[in-house]
Amino acid sequence: MTKKIPLPSLKRLPKYYSIVCEYYKEGKEYIKSSEISKKLDIDETQVRKDIALLNCAGKPKVGFNINELKRYLEEFLDINNMKDSFLIGTGNLGLAIAKYNGFEKYGLNITALFDTDPHKIGLKVGEKEIFHVSKFPDLAQRMRVKIIILAVPREEAQKMADIAVKAGAKAIWNFAPANIDVPKDVLVINQDLATDFMVLWLQLHNKDLSI
Amino acid sequence: MTKKIPLPSLKRLPKYYSIVCEYYKEGKEYIKSSEISKKLDIDETQVRKDIALLNCAGKPKVGFNINELKRYLEEFLDINNMKDSFLIGTGNLGLAIAKYNGFEKYGLNITALFDTDPHKIGLKVGEKEIFHVSKFPDLAQRMRVKIIILAVPREEAQKMADIAVKAGAKAIWNFAPANIDVPKDVLVINQDLATDFMVLWLQLHNKDLSI
Repeated sequence: MTKKIPLPSLKRLPKYYSIVCEYYKEGKEYIKSSEISKKLDIDETQVRKDIALLNCAGKPKVGFNINELKRYLEEFLDINNMKDSFLIGTGNLGLAIAKYNGFEKYGLNITALFDTDPHKIGLKVGEKEIFHVSKFPDLAQRMRVKIIILAVPREEAQKMADIAVKAGAKAIWNFAPANIDVPKDVLVINQDLATDFMVLWLQLHNKDLSI
Repeated sequence: MTKKIPLPSLKRLPKYYSIVCEYYKEGKEYIKSSEISKKLDIDETQVRKDIALLNCAGKPKVGFNINELKRYLEEFLDINNMKDSFLIGTGNLGLAIAKYNGFEKYGLNITALFDTDPHKIGLKVGEKEIFHVSKFPDLAQRMRVKIIILAVPREEAQKMADIAVKAGAKAIWNFAPANIDVPKDVLVINQDLATDFMVLWLQLHNKDLSI
């Protein structure tokens, strides 16, 4: 994990892993970069360059050995280590995230949920309990959780981010449609759904764009 | 909208618009590229290049006139035209999307909701009614809706995508953790939350990446 990987490549590697896992489940032995390219609509040269970053070599005309490529990706993505996180906000979006069944494949794990609504405290979503936000600092420190998912209303976002940062959060995945201010050493990824939606619309109406 | 805009720039323009709107509301007259750069943690040279694509020129040391930059962005993003879409799936995620209060600023509008659960048909989410999926083709054709948001379980994704495509959908925003097959002229954007989450984790543990 010390190699310099361009961010766009980094973003594609989990997608390759998804497809490699499909092939693995189907009992296939090899996958060609052209197949990955076609499935993900990514240029084939790009696929080859990305996989080369993992130092995984394919065989001409045969492709990449599935077991080998899977192992390289798992090592890079550190699949076998659990990656714990806390989620703040249990409205529709928070619940959808808590129940989302795609995280496990990467070892991503939401350990506990937090809210301020007294009616929700103590309820369980699957195996996960909803705690009051006041318990956040103590639990985050005891469980050494550094990744926070923020699914609160816009007005609450900064306040909850402050609580999380004070308790040692190092990365915030922010679903609230609000910019939050955090210290420089804290990573924030804004999942601005409106922007994502707008990008889809722009792509649909601007076929002449370059990728 | 006929100019060739690189996709990464395209993705940043709605973010710039967000900030420009904040400044506008606060009654500010100018914004510097350095301020946008700082707020979004994007290289200043990049910000200037992106805005240059709009043919909007700033004044040295003063920055961009807010009214002017806002107008250029609104024109490019076609803010004042309503962009209608249909949403299929009204579980937690679908409801969260239907209630999300960040779409209006871009003129993005979810016109109707669809589900297969008979208990949900006829219910309203805000102003939006939930219809049975069997009504989808007729409504999509009558209202000329081309953009579909898919928030259904993995097992349902392909079937619902097929219905949407048959009814004339040209863009699918897919939240299901599944790859869907569509004809070549249909744009699919997979909002794979697991991949997004994994990218956050990789960024947190791989500070040495290049952007």
